Amino acid sequence: RNKKAESDMEMHLNNLTKPAGSLGRLEELAVKLAGMQGIPDVSHPAVLVFAGDHGVTEEGVSLYGQELTSLMVKNFVQGGAAINVLAKEIGASVTVTDIGVKGETPGAESKKVKNGTGNIAVEAAMSLEEAEQALNAGADTAAEAIEKGAKLIIPGDMGIGNTTVSSALIAAWTGAGVNDISGNGTGVTGTQLRLKQDVIRRAVRRISCTEPLDILAELGGLEHAAMAGAMIEAAGRKTPILVDGFIASAAALAAEKLAPLSKEYFIFGHRSAEAGHGRALEMMGGEPLLDLQLRLGEGTGAAAAYPLVSMAAAVVREMAVFSDLGIDA
Amino acid sequence: RNKKAESDMEMHLNNLTKPAGSLGRLEELAVKLAGMQGIPDVSHPAVLVFAGDHGVTEEGVSLYGQELTSLMVKNFVQGGAAINVLAKEIGASVTVTDIGVKGETPGAESKKVKNGTGNIAVEAAMSLEEAEQALNAGADTAAEAIEKGAKLIIPGDMGIGNTTVSSALIAAWTGAGVNDISGNGTGVTGTQLRLKQDVIRRAVRRISCTEPLDILAELGGLEHAAMAGAMIEAAGRKTPILVDGFIASAAALAAEKLAPLSKEYFIFGHRSAEAGHGRALEMMGGEPLLDLQLRLGEGTGAAAAYPLVSMAAAVVREMAVFSDLGIDA
Repeated sequence: RNKKAESDMEMHLNNLTKPAGSLGRLEELAVKLAGMQGIPDVSHPAVLVFAGDHGVTEEGVSLYGQELTSLMVKNFVQGGAAINVLAKEIGASVTVTDIGVKGETPGAESKKVKNGTGNIAVEAAMSLEEAEQALNAGADTAAEAIEKGAKLIIPGDMGIGNTTVSSALIAAWTGAGVNDISGNGTGVTGTQLRLKQDVIRRAVRRISCTEPLDILAELGGLEHAAMAGAMIEAAGRKTPILVDGFIASAAALAAEKLAPLSKEYFIFGHRSAEAGHGRALEMMGGEPLLDLQLRLGEGTGAAAAYPLVSMAAAVVREMAVFSDLGIDA
Repeated sequence: RNKKAESDMEMHLNNLTKPAGSLGRLEELAVKLAGMQGIPDVSHPAVLVFAGDHGVTEEGVSLYGQELTSLMVKNFVQGGAAINVLAKEIGASVTVTDIGVKGETPGAESKKVKNGTGNIAVEAAMSLEEAEQALNAGADTAAEAIEKGAKLIIPGDMGIGNTTVSSALIAAWTGAGVNDISGNGTGVTGTQLRLKQDVIRRAVRRISCTEPLDILAELGGLEHAAMAGAMIEAAGRKTPILVDGFIASAAALAAEKLAPLSKEYFIFGHRSAEAGHGRALEMMGGEPLLDLQLRLGEGTGAAAAYPLVSMAAAVVREMAVFSDLGIDA
């Protein structure tokens, strides 16, 4: 993080033709981008969606069956999902990577590690080797996007059951109570929500490890590992990462545990309506740009926030300074 | 407001390939747009900036002198202000109208009613005829933009002293205490803030009228009247109005008082950091999309929110429905 660039940016912001500080969080964003990049540039955003299945769905934690994961991958490939529409709105590329879907995913980039994870209520989600393979696959996907010109990445997720898995990861890393951090996911309530919370509790109690990679392998999803890998790679390349909601924040927590400096490149896009997101954000010191009751995932909340990041970069590149108007600032 | 279109839109939203309600406030926006327009379409947004001066600046209520208004108009015309940069980011046209600047404004559209208003602490800001002239000028500006193809308008403001005037209007219409609704404007604090509050109190106490047009003429700015006129005209043409922060909300309140149905076409872009915005929003039942500590005006907060409105419209136009994937919704 370039502190000199940050303080230079603060001075520049005060010379722009507006009252000091009047662009609020857009100014904070500009300073943060300067610290990451020197000159802010978030052009050619790349949405990187990772899809995987979760053995824990056999416990009945989700409203939908696992088969919806591959159907939604088809939807992404065909351009019909919410993230496709929002990506088009912001001029972002979309790559859809099968990192562990159970079944075929024609048209998706295949980096499949295996056909879905183990059921975290009773067994490890994946082996350490599988976790590393998914981390590396995510890193490769980010590297490819950045080499093609992306100056900002938006990791997204698809995987029926992944709010359960994210809750388990966040519980393990924040120490928060399961009831405080598990929510309705795609729409579970009442008895099914209590069952989901019980499953998360069983998963968290089952493990005794403390190393980040061990926890990720025990409780994670393959898409969490891939997203974390993408984040670590992007941070290493000084590329801002626009973090989506609940699932992406669980992955961001994994990235930070594995590579603490990666946090310096996080910009939090939105506050999820999913209970528990707040705890993960608190732990990372994140204050999202948007709070619009979104709870969809796929990277949609981050894509919705992207125009604000782009505006922050544009303001410092394009606005006039007071001396242009013949005024002493 | 077309209630049938709203309920049809609610049904359509539930068929889209996402969990019901998971796009949160974007879904609410889509329903609201459907009620206004039938099929949501917010393409070709038009930023309409109205600039005017305020006699009340002679009381010393602002950090800047009146001469900054015409300098900033020059900046708008040259494309160097924050609103120019944000308008470019969202693909919006910008028109800059001099509705009452003291002095010359080369390059701006001239609809000047007079060279600045009277000092509201001691006299009426304008006559009823002048208020009507400004309302009509604003309406004409909106009509021109809509006839050129704008499907959404963003009224913006420039005028040194206009937070003082906006506070007076909001105090008169909401009955709120002056200390609760007057804030730092471009940066006044301490003694100067107390002086500003005293000036607002004197202005509000000076008047005894209750008719909206009388209040607007007594306490308003020419840009408030023009913005209100633009809003009323747009609403009459079933065109959504993205309302900026504190100044624009004072104008929106005027529009609503003069033509109550215009409120149905308001979408509130952002919650201003300026104290008192909350009271105006409460009175109109508005819940802004963004809360980013902006306090600049010019239409910037509305422009920052525009991509969300555009996304809401795109989602319902472009997303696949479950039956496209062979799933019963």
